[in-house]
Amino acid sequence: MARLKGFQKLTPVNEALPVLLETWHAKKTRVIAVSLDLALNRVLAEPFKAVEDLPRSNRSAVDGYALIAKDTVGTSQFKPKILKITNHEKIGIKQARQVWTGNPIPKGADSVIMLENIKRVGDTIEVWIPLTPSENVSKRGEDIKRGDIAIEAGTRLKSQHLGLMAALGATKAKVFERPKIAILTTGNELVEIGCQRKENEVFDVNRHVIATLCHELGAEPLDLGIAKDDDQEIAEKLRAGLAADAIITTGGTSVGASDLVPEIVNKIGKPGVLVHGMAMRPAMPTALAFIQHKPILIFPGNPVAAIIAFEVFARPLICKMIGLKSEESRPMIEARMIRKITTTLGRKTFVRVHVFHDNGKYFAEPISARGSGIISTMTRANGYVVVQEDREGLSEGEIVTVALFDNVEWRDTNVQTTNDI
Amino acid sequence: MARLKGFQKLTPVNEALPVLLETWHAKKTRVIAVSLDLALNRVLAEPFKAVEDLPRSNRSAVDGYALIAKDTVGTSQFKPKILKITNHEKIGIKQARQVWTGNPIPKGADSVIMLENIKRVGDTIEVWIPLTPSENVSKRGEDIKRGDIAIEAGTRLKSQHLGLMAALGATKAKVFERPKIAILTTGNELVEIGCQRKENEVFDVNRHVIATLCHELGAEPLDLGIAKDDDQEIAEKLRAGLAADAIITTGGTSVGASDLVPEIVNKIGKPGVLVHGMAMRPAMPTALAFIQHKPILIFPGNPVAAIIAFEVFARPLICKMIGLKSEESRPMIEARMIRKITTTLGRKTFVRVHVFHDNGKYFAEPISARGSGIISTMTRANGYVVVQEDREGLSEGEIVTVALFDNVEWRDTNVQTTNDI
Repeated sequence: MARLKGFQKLTPVNEALPVLLETWHAKKTRVIAVSLDLALNRVLAEPFKAVEDLPRSNRSAVDGYALIAKDTVGTSQFKPKILKITNHEKIGIKQARQVWTGNPIPKGADSVIMLENIKRVGDTIEVWIPLTPSENVSKRGEDIKRGDIAIEAGTRLKSQHLGLMAALGATKAKVFERPKIAILTTGNELVEIGCQRKENEVFDVNRHVIATLCHELGAEPLDLGIAKDDDQEIAEKLRAGLAADAIITTGGTSVGASDLVPEIVNKIGKPGVLVHGMAMRPAMPTALAFIQHKPILIFPGNPVAAIIAFEVFARPLICKMIGLKSEESRPMIEARMIRKITTTLGRKTFVRVHVFHDNGKYFAEPISARGSGIISTMTRANGYVVVQEDREGLSEGEIVTVALFDNVEWRDTNVQTTNDI
Repeated sequence: MARLKGFQKLTPVNEALPVLLETWHAKKTRVIAVSLDLALNRVLAEPFKAVEDLPRSNRSAVDGYALIAKDTVGTSQFKPKILKITNHEKIGIKQARQVWTGNPIPKGADSVIMLENIKRVGDTIEVWIPLTPSENVSKRGEDIKRGDIAIEAGTRLKSQHLGLMAALGATKAKVFERPKIAILTTGNELVEIGCQRKENEVFDVNRHVIATLCHELGAEPLDLGIAKDDDQEIAEKLRAGLAADAIITTGGTSVGASDLVPEIVNKIGKPGVLVHGMAMRPAMPTALAFIQHKPILIFPGNPVAAIIAFEVFARPLICKMIGLKSEESRPMIEARMIRKITTTLGRKTFVRVHVFHDNGKYFAEPISARGSGIISTMTRANGYVVVQEDREGLSEGEIVTVALFDNVEWRDTNVQTTNDI
């Protein structure tokens, strides 16, 4: 039946999202071992335990000379002690051996004096301060102890984690296999890039955008192609998509005379559509469904709406599917609205903004456009602000939290470097 | 000659970095065309111009009925006009045709009335408000006009850029070829992961960390392997590395009795080392050199120092080499120090911190450790704070700007979603 005046009842995002996340249950995700250099951004599947102490032996924490602390008792700059420099494996009484940060402490020595606290004179050093045993020594196991969990399961592996794993001798990382997300776009008007178009046809944007968003998060996109607004074609492609771990579709949620994709999903399997119609803007016609425990995220066809729906629903789901121990959000920044904007009461509204830094402060300029089809608003914006359902807009000068999806523009210097912070 | 008490003169980072960036001159970087789905995070080499108007024709900006504005003159909710619904290509006087956001405006129509401003009665609609011509219509070229620069050269392509390119029918993106960065670690104590070690040997961490940091930024790491602290072996590997666009080495900058790598670099070619010894902590023994116009970044062997040196020197250089129009910094966040820390006057100090969000505020906990060999400090931290040379530390409660290299911990909710902002 035609749904001419929109949804009877819209579901708040904060009610719809838990339905999605709580209905999804992890199947036993395969754990695979990948070489360390290929493990960047993968999610660790098992706690990574230290197989040995790090450091494995006592090491110098500074550049200086290893010596016996007892030899420095009573020392001062006015009453220096003189120690003899040695290169022997083992140092004896009144001897010192040069060490650099990270070097093992030579046998016999128990502490290290820093270079700035000595003066080298020929083959001796003048020691100016007294040391206590273990001073400037990194003790065995000080970094990490054998058997300790060095990295928790569910951690996304960054270069620093790979470094720690290498330090502990790991050549491979046990990570979760990437979940497969099948992507289907629907619409009679859609044509694949590179193909001929008729006057009323447009190139398909969503498959490309959603595939890269999935890929960025660490899921593997599977391309189901474009389907015409045709029951049979859509059903066929959705059935093929059930081989993946989840399906994302766009289009056919409110276009034309029927809710095409939600209706087909309900015909294909159970439980079908759980929520349809969100109290949000854009992406109101979003539907969330399950078939055979596989989530099917049914997004609107307009590219901006599809991207926002992805942010709100697909991102937290994929974070859970890839095995992250906690959801990753976009980097957040506080900025000052430079113009007021108006939103609709009862709709959680996602306002695209351009954040720039000027004169020591962050500002957010709303990128306004009617219609969520205006994709250039997503490239002119570098973040979005959420206006909650109980607000009717944001005032000029209001401090808002922006979720960033691109770099902040730096207006007050030519080049911003990490040294400017 | 031995350099026993450190460098005679240390160069401030803010003087050393421009030497590196200004001595480097872009060779003509090759431009290659890559398929859109492989262009994520690549850098656009040429301005991307719109080959046609977007939208290509007038389209509806809302869900509603296309009609002729003149037919609605004098309308109100108390005095509605009745229009007949048609499915014809062209609509006539007192006719309306249902359209959805993004649909072309049917011939004859000049405006669209939103669903909430009509009531459908059989095969007619009651129109409750008057429209003006073009109301709720996205005009041809409103998003982007033919010939306009849709995306500037030097932009890192995110999913939204690929979406805009797809909307304009592009199948490929012209991007810069990735610069090749050769990576060499030096040190008699280093052993490749997976190999047998003697008591005083450690696994090589730096090649793995630096390779992934290069890869993340969009450069292609080339592995020169591990060299012993041996003039000839290092020289040979450095010469091989000159086939790349830049070289990064670690170790041999202050370890042992000589500045091994800087001295070898000076023997191999001109101009050689330009700066050696930075007024910073860690990574003080960093050296910056050029041979045959190729930058050679000579970093300390301690993993944490090498990572910080990479952040400070390699990151801005690589941003320039990959062709970005402006440097990308890490995401920045303001946080409150929960403990005071002490630093050395005259040294720009990079303090690792763990940032967490609690009770609506961001806090930074310094992750202290003697010695920059303690690599677990980099996994316990998620960002760093720069303490400038004229400071002797940071006070408790001080607001600092943190450069984030991992996610912020969210302590005040179980799950943070983008909907909580």
